[in-house]
Amino acid sequence: MKPVKVGLLGLGTVGTGVVRIVEGNQEDLSSQVGSPIVVEKIAVKSVEKARSVEVDPSRLTGDPWDVINDPEIDVIIEVMGGVEQTKAYLLQALENGKHIVTANKDLMALHGAEILAKAQEKQCDVFYEASVAGGIPIIRTLIEGFSSDRIIRIMGIVNGTTNYILTKMSQEGASYDEVLKEAQELGYAESDPTSDVEGLDAARKMAILATLGFRSNVELGDVSVKGISHISSEDIAFAKKLGYEMKLLGIADRNGDQFNISVQPTMVSQNHPLASVNGVFNAVYVHGEAVGETMFYGAGAGELPTATSVVADLVAVVKNLKLGVNGLKAISPYKPKLLTSEEEVFSKNFILLHVDDKAGVLAQITQVFAEFGVSLASVVQQPNEHNPDAEIIIITHSASKANMQKVLDHFESLEVIRKIKSVYRVEG
Amino acid sequence: MKPVKVGLLGLGTVGTGVVRIVEGNQEDLSSQVGSPIVVEKIAVKSVEKARSVEVDPSRLTGDPWDVINDPEIDVIIEVMGGVEQTKAYLLQALENGKHIVTANKDLMALHGAEILAKAQEKQCDVFYEASVAGGIPIIRTLIEGFSSDRIIRIMGIVNGTTNYILTKMSQEGASYDEVLKEAQELGYAESDPTSDVEGLDAARKMAILATLGFRSNVELGDVSVKGISHISSEDIAFAKKLGYEMKLLGIADRNGDQFNISVQPTMVSQNHPLASVNGVFNAVYVHGEAVGETMFYGAGAGELPTATSVVADLVAVVKNLKLGVNGLKAISPYKPKLLTSEEEVFSKNFILLHVDDKAGVLAQITQVFAEFGVSLASVVQQPNEHNPDAEIIIITHSASKANMQKVLDHFESLEVIRKIKSVYRVEG
Repeated sequence: MKPVKVGLLGLGTVGTGVVRIVEGNQEDLSSQVGSPIVVEKIAVKSVEKARSVEVDPSRLTGDPWDVINDPEIDVIIEVMGGVEQTKAYLLQALENGKHIVTANKDLMALHGAEILAKAQEKQCDVFYEASVAGGIPIIRTLIEGFSSDRIIRIMGIVNGTTNYILTKMSQEGASYDEVLKEAQELGYAESDPTSDVEGLDAARKMAILATLGFRSNVELGDVSVKGISHISSEDIAFAKKLGYEMKLLGIADRNGDQFNISVQPTMVSQNHPLASVNGVFNAVYVHGEAVGETMFYGAGAGELPTATSVVADLVAVVKNLKLGVNGLKAISPYKPKLLTSEEEVFSKNFILLHVDDKAGVLAQITQVFAEFGVSLASVVQQPNEHNPDAEIIIITHSASKANMQKVLDHFESLEVIRKIKSVYRVEG
Repeated sequence: MKPVKVGLLGLGTVGTGVVRIVEGNQEDLSSQVGSPIVVEKIAVKSVEKARSVEVDPSRLTGDPWDVINDPEIDVIIEVMGGVEQTKAYLLQALENGKHIVTANKDLMALHGAEILAKAQEKQCDVFYEASVAGGIPIIRTLIEGFSSDRIIRIMGIVNGTTNYILTKMSQEGASYDEVLKEAQELGYAESDPTSDVEGLDAARKMAILATLGFRSNVELGDVSVKGISHISSEDIAFAKKLGYEMKLLGIADRNGDQFNISVQPTMVSQNHPLASVNGVFNAVYVHGEAVGETMFYGAGAGELPTATSVVADLVAVVKNLKLGVNGLKAISPYKPKLLTSEEEVFSKNFILLHVDDKAGVLAQITQVFAEFGVSLASVVQQPNEHNPDAEIIIITHSASKANMQKVLDHFESLEVIRKIKSVYRVEG
């Protein structure tokens, strides 16, 4: 049987895993697709560099175009990362009639629509399961498993770095800076951690998930983003004391025909299944009108988990190739994109205020909430351990983002409030 | 666009859900498959019976053959249940060139291989996502999401009735009989609960999951089964005290090329993600060589969750129909079936003994474990609250099933042991 030939762009962590799985599981893979699968050519930055996986040097090239323009190659696996140059490579690969498997969330979040349109034009497959939540088959689940349902809400812990940091802060009471440093030493955080800790990586993944879940073309700019770098160990201690875990949550909500997508540190009730997702693990909670609550849990990153998803996509491409149906099953987002206004985005909120420790303060503060129609679930006033101030801890009932902002704006002008210490979304 | 015509066998709980979803989500469904989907004909036991969903009486028939032999119908959805007669219906439907979606775990566990072989012969699709774990797309995940990986272990809470009973017993300290009665009143348990509480329903689902996960033709008879009807509230209290929750777990283990599949009440460590799956929810934990630990959680039964899976399968069939590739993607189990011998099935165990309260007893008992090479993780002896006996609570390290059986057999002849009160598998 004629082997299917694969070209690999990139031989870093995930690329190495792909080579390992394709070679190590060859018998299983060929039993499923009916012919051998061969990684024919690999584009790398340096052909001389020592590799942790054995590859015949004659298969390596320093020039991605050697792979993209090789007429022998059927499928391109892109695990090199990058956006603009990589997009040019993949558009040309599609132009050349090659099918694509990519793990590139940045590319798919920023230019997914353009790449998928080109793929449809050329009747090619573009699969990208590994771009979100590593080894968890969440993209397949949204496209196929829930094809029959209407998704109301997707909540995800989709960034392992920040979940590792928050888990450590929660379990050890350590500070953000300490844990970030440790994560960097362990290789769980980049030397420049901005994209992870400021929520951008999670936002890209949420744009991809919301596009699939809501069947509408959600873009990165539609996602409001807050990161975790300002979270103090005091905040986490408050959360735990009140029965919550602090998580960086991506939340995509549908309200009728309108969507709201955000990423922010969120206090998640310890009873919610997302609260016990710890360390570098990822999980995506999906609530459908018919199916109800579901959750999908697994490794969000790492060589072999991510490569599992890449190679599963490769198997799907090769099956389609054998049947001659590549590019024919893809569904373009068909729903209009309407974003929910801030008047209609509702959530519960946690607010920690430092205030003057004198009579009448609490009355003034609760009056502000009442004025803007925000009702309160609990209010605690206590002396501050470290200052002459008092602390007021408030959890609101569900309130609109617009009204909450009005309350906070008003607080700025309230003399008795020394500091708005923390504000977090609350879920569960 | 010519509509795709569906014939429905059965209009009970799941059938009603299917009608609701196909009609309620028609716009979404037809956007995905490119033509309307119509439930054309429905076979029911009584055409006169009042229904909670509105259906044109002219679409109802009392005779399933009317549906199966209707040349207009493209796809048969079987949600009537039953085994032998239903098998005859479906084999004839395939003979007639119709594709099949079924929610019937009994049928698939007992005759899946025969039905899938006939489907392959006739180039028809047979999809059965709803047969295991209701709304959780676990069958898709095993076939497609993990096509690239080699599964080591599948552990599932796949029976909602027993999980409801065990959760209630754990949370309320209630007895098995009390909770079963309550579950029957709430409709969570059948009036004859045998199939659920004796583990047979779970065993059928595990045979299906193991066949897919291990790519080998696992049959119901390969699954060893113990139910929950003998579990006392005392057992559950012991489990909780030691940091475990009692769950009816299906466990499919692969050891090299050998498989072991069982269903039994198991003490699951409270740290394990399966321990917090409560009530009628289901969850399947899958451990793959490359992907590592994953878990999939959701509603295991109910009208709309189960119908979500049925209609997602219908969408897949219709997409294949449009592409002319029905029946071509199916993979027959291609691995030989080798079952692990009892010498090589290992697990930790909990044993509760009632013994004479006198000197030297513990020495005699631990001597038996030593003799058969079973090492102990913990041993506690304490007075029995209700008897003059003492209680000995033992947790073993991982031991072979064969050696554990030898220990228990030997205990029968040991005079100081008044009763082997409980023995449970321990996980996590």
